Amino acid sequence: MPIAFDLPPAARPGQPADTIDTPSLVLDLDLFAANVDRMQAAADRRGIKLRPHAKAHKCPDISLAQIARGAVGICCQKVSEAIPFVRAGVRDIHISNEVAGPAKAALLADLARLATLSVCVDDIAQVDALAAATAAAGSKLGVFVEVNVGQGRCGVTDPAAMLALVERIAQHGQLTMRGLQAYHGGIQHLRGWNERRDGAAQAADRTGSFIARLNAAGVRCDVVTGGGSGSVEFDLGSGVYTEIQPGSYVFMDADYGANDYAGALRFEHSLFIATSVMSVAAGDRVVVDAGLKSMAVDSGLPWIWADGKQSATLDYVAANDEHGIVKPKHEDLVGKLPALGSRMMLVPGHCDPTLNLYDEIVGIRAGVVESVWPVSARGLSR
Amino acid sequence: MPIAFDLPPAARPGQPADTIDTPSLVLDLDLFAANVDRMQAAADRRGIKLRPHAKAHKCPDISLAQIARGAVGICCQKVSEAIPFVRAGVRDIHISNEVAGPAKAALLADLARLATLSVCVDDIAQVDALAAATAAAGSKLGVFVEVNVGQGRCGVTDPAAMLALVERIAQHGQLTMRGLQAYHGGIQHLRGWNERRDGAAQAADRTGSFIARLNAAGVRCDVVTGGGSGSVEFDLGSGVYTEIQPGSYVFMDADYGANDYAGALRFEHSLFIATSVMSVAAGDRVVVDAGLKSMAVDSGLPWIWADGKQSATLDYVAANDEHGIVKPKHEDLVGKLPALGSRMMLVPGHCDPTLNLYDEIVGIRAGVVESVWPVSARGLSR
Repeated sequence: MPIAFDLPPAARPGQPADTIDTPSLVLDLDLFAANVDRMQAAADRRGIKLRPHAKAHKCPDISLAQIARGAVGICCQKVSEAIPFVRAGVRDIHISNEVAGPAKAALLADLARLATLSVCVDDIAQVDALAAATAAAGSKLGVFVEVNVGQGRCGVTDPAAMLALVERIAQHGQLTMRGLQAYHGGIQHLRGWNERRDGAAQAADRTGSFIARLNAAGVRCDVVTGGGSGSVEFDLGSGVYTEIQPGSYVFMDADYGANDYAGALRFEHSLFIATSVMSVAAGDRVVVDAGLKSMAVDSGLPWIWADGKQSATLDYVAANDEHGIVKPKHEDLVGKLPALGSRMMLVPGHCDPTLNLYDEIVGIRAGVVESVWPVSARGLSR
Repeated sequence: MPIAFDLPPAARPGQPADTIDTPSLVLDLDLFAANVDRMQAAADRRGIKLRPHAKAHKCPDISLAQIARGAVGICCQKVSEAIPFVRAGVRDIHISNEVAGPAKAALLADLARLATLSVCVDDIAQVDALAAATAAAGSKLGVFVEVNVGQGRCGVTDPAAMLALVERIAQHGQLTMRGLQAYHGGIQHLRGWNERRDGAAQAADRTGSFIARLNAAGVRCDVVTGGGSGSVEFDLGSGVYTEIQPGSYVFMDADYGANDYAGALRFEHSLFIATSVMSVAAGDRVVVDAGLKSMAVDSGLPWIWADGKQSATLDYVAANDEHGIVKPKHEDLVGKLPALGSRMMLVPGHCDPTLNLYDEIVGIRAGVVESVWPVSARGLSR
């Protein structure tokens, strides 16, 4: 006989925010909306299209909010990741990545019957695989040639390789050359504003020379897409990008928060992990219930957030699988450690892989739970 | 109109293992079974009970296999984590952790109507909360006093605090003092075998003095539970533990693999991430499709596994959100980089948070997919 026993929800609309079960992922809806508006306004001022990246949140409700404000569509990083967004009604998705193997090409070609899709290539074999899959599916696909503008990850470095890809794409009627993808992940977290500005300028220069080679060859290039939350204020004015694809700006994790922002474009920390103190036995520290399974620590440990800023008294100093260790910043603060059962809010170090740990985002406004959004693409990494 | 479009499964029983879609979590069932048998045999030889930890895998099929071989039950680390195991028929579960807040105490008390459950305490307030919740639910709960044997995380350090907890437990008819939990996570990954032996001996000494204080006070202590995959070979012969609770030994991640094993008890790497080369454009490296969303890197990057050992030619050198960077160990091996679309197997750095990223474990035997097991407790961190 099956056991009828369900886990109660962590939060229900209408309940006080300080009663959400922990650990939970919590979004301040006012700060989130301000971030969405600010990026859209910055793109609109420059006449650049905004195609926000969904890999940061994996949540269709967030993409729909961005599109309602003016985004032209979204980016996904994996083919499987795009499925819940198509299901939710997003009809223009760029897979900002290369795709390996016939299974993924077939999936992409099938999905392209339901929405306008594009994908990146940096190898002739990928073009041929996409052509075969779209021919079999009877669908059409936009293709971007990814160019290496300094990161040295994916993308061709030699303009001749770019032109060979363009030529091959043109040989396949199901495929349309949409333009270039020029993204430099390595500059997004350079801490200094000047460093990021110079890095973005260098990436834009490299992008510009690829565009010049396309123009010289008489190849039409409607779209140049790229940029992330750390470089976008420079990318917008670079003169080379027609479209930007930032993702993390809606949340601003601690790693982005550690960047220096000297310019006009800033975003708020809107995403938090609600956690509870579960042990005070050690005396000189407390243990909270959010550890490695509740946050990604690849880009650093979370910040403890109190009264709209980093805590002046407490640090989250170590993450175990299910435990977080919180210590006072100075020994003379040991007497002021939080009590057993008390709660705190953490700003995660890196939002993208943290979102990938949760099934739900609990939206709060003015201290009350307003929404519970499914993270529908959580775990979809194929 | 809802879109009818489902992601095809990554693997189906009967298909060749080298056609599993990537990235996927893959378990070598022969090596897994050998690990399960070896730990059970080691415990049986000493007459010590084995209560394997389910936090390492979150997969009921694995717990049921362990119980079928002789395990007395399982450990879980969170109350919510226990639910799918109860549903799958596991009837004896120890929550090897403290529980914060009335919601979790209520959940635990409700679940205790369906299975034999126990939990840890290190504070009088926790005892009272458990008593109130079990009284409300009409259920009974076993309670372990957690003692600090060196880790300095949870658990009381002062024997007087232990005795006060024992006394308080005895005041509540719904609660039964089951024994002590004495776990030292900090020694599990000491690299040297001698270091781990000495660390385990010290923890056992501390455990022994807590037991002596209980005996002196005339308190019955049936169970002393603790030990992890790195210390268990010493814990088994320590004379203080009646029960061990290792988890990772079924998989042996790279972090445990980096330990030095001079003793008789060794385990095999049975868990892998299947990944594909998705870009070779950079020339001096290749990019694979498994990054931070496909593995935890808190305890180090994955090993590339080839022919039953670490690759002699390739290293996984960096993990981005959806990309892994693989470089040759020496420059003169650049010409031998794997081709676009080729596959490799990775041994993850840390199994517990890696399992928490996947919905399924694909079991293979002799090169063929045999089973697809749900990771039913994935994401259950409350």
